[in-house]
Amino acid sequence: MKIALAQLNYHIGNFESNTKKIIAAIGDAKLKGADLVVFAELAVCGYPPRDFLEFTEFVELCDHSIEEIAAACTDIACIIGAPTKNPRIEGKDLFNSAYFIEGGKITQVVNKALLPTYDVFDEYRYFEPSVSFSCIEFQGRKIALTICEDLWNINDNPLYISAPMDELVKESPDFMINIAASPFSYNHDDNRYKILSDNCKKYQLPLLYVNQVGSQTEIIFDGGSLVFNAQGEMLDQLNYFEEDLRVYEFDGTAITGLEKKEHNPLPDIEQIHQALILGIRDYFHKSGFSKAVLGLSGGIDSALVCALAAEALGPQNVMAVLMPSKYSTGHSVQDALDLVQNLGCKHEIIAIKDAADAFESMLAPVFEGLPFNVAEENIQARCRAVIVMAFSNKFGYILLNTSNKSECAVGYGTLYGDMAGAIGVLGDVYKTQVYQLANFINREREIIPQNSIVKPPSAELRPDQKDSDSLPEYDVLDKLLFQYIELKKSSRDIIAQGFDEQLVRKVIAMVNKAEFKRYQTPPILRVSPKAFGMGRRMPIVGKYLS
Amino acid sequence: MKIALAQLNYHIGNFESNTKKIIAAIGDAKLKGADLVVFAELAVCGYPPRDFLEFTEFVELCDHSIEEIAAACTDIACIIGAPTKNPRIEGKDLFNSAYFIEGGKITQVVNKALLPTYDVFDEYRYFEPSVSFSCIEFQGRKIALTICEDLWNINDNPLYISAPMDELVKESPDFMINIAASPFSYNHDDNRYKILSDNCKKYQLPLLYVNQVGSQTEIIFDGGSLVFNAQGEMLDQLNYFEEDLRVYEFDGTAITGLEKKEHNPLPDIEQIHQALILGIRDYFHKSGFSKAVLGLSGGIDSALVCALAAEALGPQNVMAVLMPSKYSTGHSVQDALDLVQNLGCKHEIIAIKDAADAFESMLAPVFEGLPFNVAEENIQARCRAVIVMAFSNKFGYILLNTSNKSECAVGYGTLYGDMAGAIGVLGDVYKTQVYQLANFINREREIIPQNSIVKPPSAELRPDQKDSDSLPEYDVLDKLLFQYIELKKSSRDIIAQGFDEQLVRKVIAMVNKAEFKRYQTPPILRVSPKAFGMGRRMPIVGKYLS
Repeated sequence: MKIALAQLNYHIGNFESNTKKIIAAIGDAKLKGADLVVFAELAVCGYPPRDFLEFTEFVELCDHSIEEIAAACTDIACIIGAPTKNPRIEGKDLFNSAYFIEGGKITQVVNKALLPTYDVFDEYRYFEPSVSFSCIEFQGRKIALTICEDLWNINDNPLYISAPMDELVKESPDFMINIAASPFSYNHDDNRYKILSDNCKKYQLPLLYVNQVGSQTEIIFDGGSLVFNAQGEMLDQLNYFEEDLRVYEFDGTAITGLEKKEHNPLPDIEQIHQALILGIRDYFHKSGFSKAVLGLSGGIDSALVCALAAEALGPQNVMAVLMPSKYSTGHSVQDALDLVQNLGCKHEIIAIKDAADAFESMLAPVFEGLPFNVAEENIQARCRAVIVMAFSNKFGYILLNTSNKSECAVGYGTLYGDMAGAIGVLGDVYKTQVYQLANFINREREIIPQNSIVKPPSAELRPDQKDSDSLPEYDVLDKLLFQYIELKKSSRDIIAQGFDEQLVRKVIAMVNKAEFKRYQTPPILRVSPKAFGMGRRMPIVGKYLS
Repeated sequence: MKIALAQLNYHIGNFESNTKKIIAAIGDAKLKGADLVVFAELAVCGYPPRDFLEFTEFVELCDHSIEEIAAACTDIACIIGAPTKNPRIEGKDLFNSAYFIEGGKITQVVNKALLPTYDVFDEYRYFEPSVSFSCIEFQGRKIALTICEDLWNINDNPLYISAPMDELVKESPDFMINIAASPFSYNHDDNRYKILSDNCKKYQLPLLYVNQVGSQTEIIFDGGSLVFNAQGEMLDQLNYFEEDLRVYEFDGTAITGLEKKEHNPLPDIEQIHQALILGIRDYFHKSGFSKAVLGLSGGIDSALVCALAAEALGPQNVMAVLMPSKYSTGHSVQDALDLVQNLGCKHEIIAIKDAADAFESMLAPVFEGLPFNVAEENIQARCRAVIVMAFSNKFGYILLNTSNKSECAVGYGTLYGDMAGAIGVLGDVYKTQVYQLANFINREREIIPQNSIVKPPSAELRPDQKDSDSLPEYDVLDKLLFQYIELKKSSRDIIAQGFDEQLVRKVIAMVNKAEFKRYQTPPILRVSPKAFGMGRRMPIVGKYLS
């Protein structure tokens, strides 16, 4: 039996494009002699469809796509993910399902039992968990077909009280197929590998695993679909961060013709680099835009975003706007110009002085006698947002946000100023990782000016300002933030690790007080296990460690 | 047996304040001779605590509060909601629980079975559903104690496959108690009344129902706790939108000394009026702020917000900033001044011309030869945001957002301009309801100038602009939006109701295309069954009816 794994890049709700792509892959799999082609979880509508699922019409469009896809399944069988209606009146109205299609017809439907409802996942919001289980019979073989999370309940602290494979294994299946929508984070690849391998070992069955690839606003799917033998050894892995389709031979007992391979994922920073480029590219392509604008300060964050955007969209599609203020140092403009030169992207220089002066004059009667403070600092940052948004409105450029995760965490940024943008490129990348990414981009030649990398970080909103005036050094700050944000450690536990007590309390309070700002920031490309945005839902008017 | 219902206003994560308030109510209930005092769902930490629940320390602080509360329960028993740890390794780590405390000690814990995970609710994100049920025994009586949603599974399309009362009734309880955190929407009161009354009729038991009161960022709890007899007739209702504590006598069979009362809720607009005032007040008080700023245009939306803020915070705490542009009509400033005069709040007039001109000059080389368009319109709206945010940064005023639901829906607003603010007061109020609220506020005397109410709506961002240039009339638009947003009807169904087909497609596409703007808007006070924000989760890069 020949089985094709089709790892595709879907677009949420774009039924025409998804269906066309799926049908093309069915044709490709047939050409390659496959008896069965396997697509990912919720492939017909893209993942996550969110509240689109609450529209009856949306689910009908899924049904319609499945009919078209089934019609294309002549001389080949197909497994594909889609929502289906729950026929029972009790419970949620939908299941998260996998169709089995054979001879042009739907012959069986498997429903997901374990519904991830944590971090960025909201599946129990829409779906009823399945409580009945049976294998798929195909060409005299039994397939234990599960959907993503269904295989994830085998760790030390299981989230669910049961595991679907414990039921399916009673029917003595020949192998496992799992269809998934498993988002990228820099440490997820290792977890996924281990969980899937552990399933093979536990049930002593080979496994074919199909993930999606591509970015959906903030959630990035990295592909990397996997094939394991019954000993939990990896036999093959599909490409990362791009579409792929490969065919495997199953001889009734094992997947044949493949040797055991080592699992050697790229270093974290290289994974993040690829993820961010895919994230930017898909945000633009799936939104129907091609051109980006950003404010280029001469600092490291905007330099990095500019370099990533140039790689994702082509330098000719990136407009860098240099907006020096009276507090900008001379070398900032030069550093920015050097970068633009290195990348070959477009630029404009627009000093903000006239607008900032106008605001200060207009406000002078009201602010009379009061000292310069954050109000005047923020006026400058907001003048810049007015300018780059004017570029956006006039030319159809999409504004890239350049705030990094360390800043987002402690609220070091100006709402409606440098926190503006359509998509946050670095909002899940700590400042220390920003440096690593910049150095990675410069691995062969200096693209990001060395001066942008080595100079002390500064918002340049008042004379001689440095980030370190109001924040601890980033190597300390980022470690502390990681303990609180990613690991959800208590202040007590963090202090016990040797961090200064006063600093811990101050930083955690800053994080919690900045919640109102983060609520209004753009969606952030998620590359870590705990990104700001949909995956971290905090009360705004809440009084906890603040 | 005397039972006190304590309907209190909690603050999420403010353990000190919540515990103090709860212990004071225990004292009050004792003074009134109660044997048992009943508090709401998750009372110790406030509802919804969201991802605070993922911090072990947060749950420990809940435990600590419960210990303090238990110590105060001498000569009185108490029922109170709190998260508790799930002792079983399988499943989620927490339960959403009700403690029964007697003689200063926790004697029983009841766990919630039905976990709302829809709209603004995310309970399955945190909690394991209970699967075991038993009544509380107290003074020789059996209490069927449930938590909020546990009583809600008796409608025609039940969301869950079981109902806890079907189990509890097997133990022949004497009456029901339900502790809740049931948020306000203008139609929710009727639903709640019917569901609770139906439970009484179905199980032939009296019911004491305790809700919370108070606002938590966007979610407003209206109180209105209820007492029913076994025939499902209402015997009493606690106050709406304020704290209340009342004591009832249960004689072993029935709640005595009370006649059947009619359920006569206030008209929708009056409910919304009270909800918005509570929403504004609690946002400020719970955040530790007292003063508001807003841009006052002379139009109806900002006039209404100004009036609501003056009522919620006191006119002396409201700063209205009039920011005319060259396109503002003369009467706009006069209408705004009349309002300020009527309310007695503070004001400043700052024309935006100088800043807007500065931006246009700065951008002239780049925009040369291109026609005036939305870029220049938005510069004006963003100049206003820079000014009001400067007030906020300089004086500690909190910016109120004045966008209405109709505008938010179709994206008729400027991101980082008039869409800025800390809290959206009218973001869940359609334009047609804005007029109704204005007329309600003017019911006794003209507070909002009649001219602001009767003139055609306009953003005044270009000469002679009217909303009706780019939008249908609001009475048509709002009805169409209601079908799509609140009722989730398909375009086909909406067209079948007689709406113009082209208009329906255009408006729905506008709604879906504006998702990226709504993602960055402030939290919106929720007064309808489907508000923008946490309760409506749409993909941004999604292609569905757009």
